[in-house]
Amino acid sequence: MTLSAHTEISELDSARTLFRDELIGAGLLVPSSVEGLYGRSGEFEDIIDIIDEHVKAAGEAEHGRKAPRFRFPPVFPREAFERTDYIASFPNLTGAINTFDGDNKAHAALLAERSDGKDWDHFLESAGTMLVSAACHPAYSMLTGTLPEGGKLLDIYGYCFRHEPAVDPARMQAFRMHEYVRIGTPDDAVAHRERWVERGLQVLADLGLEAEAVIANDPFFGRAGRMLAANQRNENLKTELVVKLYGDLDDGTAVVSCNCHRDHFGHTFAIDTADGRPAHSACVGFGMERIALAMLRTHGLDRRKWPSAIAV
Amino acid sequence: MTLSAHTEISELDSARTLFRDELIGAGLLVPSSVEGLYGRSGEFEDIIDIIDEHVKAAGEAEHGRKAPRFRFPPVFPREAFERTDYIASFPNLTGAINTFDGDNKAHAALLAERSDGKDWDHFLESAGTMLVSAACHPAYSMLTGTLPEGGKLLDIYGYCFRHEPAVDPARMQAFRMHEYVRIGTPDDAVAHRERWVERGLQVLADLGLEAEAVIANDPFFGRAGRMLAANQRNENLKTELVVKLYGDLDDGTAVVSCNCHRDHFGHTFAIDTADGRPAHSACVGFGMERIALAMLRTHGLDRRKWPSAIAV
Repeated sequence: MTLSAHTEISELDSARTLFRDELIGAGLLVPSSVEGLYGRSGEFEDIIDIIDEHVKAAGEAEHGRKAPRFRFPPVFPREAFERTDYIASFPNLTGAINTFDGDNKAHAALLAERSDGKDWDHFLESAGTMLVSAACHPAYSMLTGTLPEGGKLLDIYGYCFRHEPAVDPARMQAFRMHEYVRIGTPDDAVAHRERWVERGLQVLADLGLEAEAVIANDPFFGRAGRMLAANQRNENLKTELVVKLYGDLDDGTAVVSCNCHRDHFGHTFAIDTADGRPAHSACVGFGMERIALAMLRTHGLDRRKWPSAIAV
Repeated sequence: MTLSAHTEISELDSARTLFRDELIGAGLLVPSSVEGLYGRSGEFEDIIDIIDEHVKAAGEAEHGRKAPRFRFPPVFPREAFERTDYIASFPNLTGAINTFDGDNKAHAALLAERSDGKDWDHFLESAGTMLVSAACHPAYSMLTGTLPEGGKLLDIYGYCFRHEPAVDPARMQAFRMHEYVRIGTPDDAVAHRERWVERGLQVLADLGLEAEAVIANDPFFGRAGRMLAANQRNENLKTELVVKLYGDLDDGTAVVSCNCHRDHFGHTFAIDTADGRPAHSACVGFGMERIALAMLRTHGLDRRKWPSAIAV
């Protein structure tokens, strides 16, 4: 997203703030003291459920019942996080978990500093765990070794965390992603990505959303990241399905992401195909909250007035 | 739980290890490199869904449709965490979230130390957020101020984190809790707790579990914690519904917890009743994974062989 003038940024931020306030006013989201963290109402969750029925139907249409389901908690081992190399590319989005491992005396000192209004984080240390950044990350450790002939297919759904506080309700720090992940040969991975671009567009169309597939890149960090982003685009490794939540004020919000990882995870998690080569992988990720927000933006905040074909 | 002899501990740990290995062998749980963190299979999730249908039915039988649903993400503001006073009572279970907020140069230094095999946590700083320790914690901020006449009732479901790595599969670091929370007068809170002891036992009986209600205490930290635990028992503020997963090797596993908080949250979150007094609160929390494990332990790992009345 490139913005040419300061006034545009301001108009866009106003539109985002207004949408957020409407969602809160309608009781769909519950605000917190931290930007990007919201409670969800039951009604919001009902929309998530509707979306997931469509995602599951698409998964079954594409894969039959061949994709075993795995549901990981929002926390996973540092050791597996290290293998994703996420800290190299997205350090600013990372969530590392610290805890207190001291004795009575250290705890007393912590509480004393706390009651003096001081910071107590220096009493904590790493818990050896991280927040999950992409729903599929905890899954690759299962696959270390040699894949069966034909590779693997996984259905994964879970909470993700990305530290990027923002006023835009579509940029949450904690959100859910439903993924179909393919691990196999280079051709398997490419085909999976390609087919899910079409399937993903169909899911969004069925939900009454006007979406478009665009070549995209991840928000790689820093100077070195600019080159990684350019490579990702040049090699056509990421396609996002975007919906315009804010008219022409920006290029749209990515609600589904179709990614080819090449042999990145095959390499770092030591996953080989049956013929002994590093496995390639690809995934499609449905951003559940973003799709819900796109539906609320498109069809209105009052679900009773939604087109009957959509409201299941 | 008090154990008299070292041999008993060892026998108990063997039983726990065996159960964990059986669950993993059956593909119900996916192990990770960290104790207490597991992926869940689709079949395990189906059991969670069965349990939740029973919990929801009990909620509706007790409260009609008066309990609005709220679903919070696993991460919430440090500012709200501070108000729970959790760091005073359970510092060792706490999860604080750190992230990287530095520049290109700091990131390069982080990556250099990382590639030397050194620890890189000192490059991170607090993200201003914490993992949710009890599903209801993020809800109290909504209620700051004066409650309506009659108080409030909430239906809350979400992931909780407690840093207590253990071999026992029933002691997970990340697990889900479905709660009904009552905030109102002291009588409202006490009545809620009492009624849910009975309702909770009924839910467990309907799931084919032999459960017992016992007076309990939270695992308060350290020397000062011993007094807090004793007070909690003496004042009868916590009742746990326990199921024996390991025969007579221990006193059973708490799968449901019925808690009276007195005016703790009313005080720290500044919640008053309509007549201007600090609100009292109480909650029942269904430990979803623990109930699922109790069912697998009681009815066997093969769900096709479960009593037909239970398998919905």
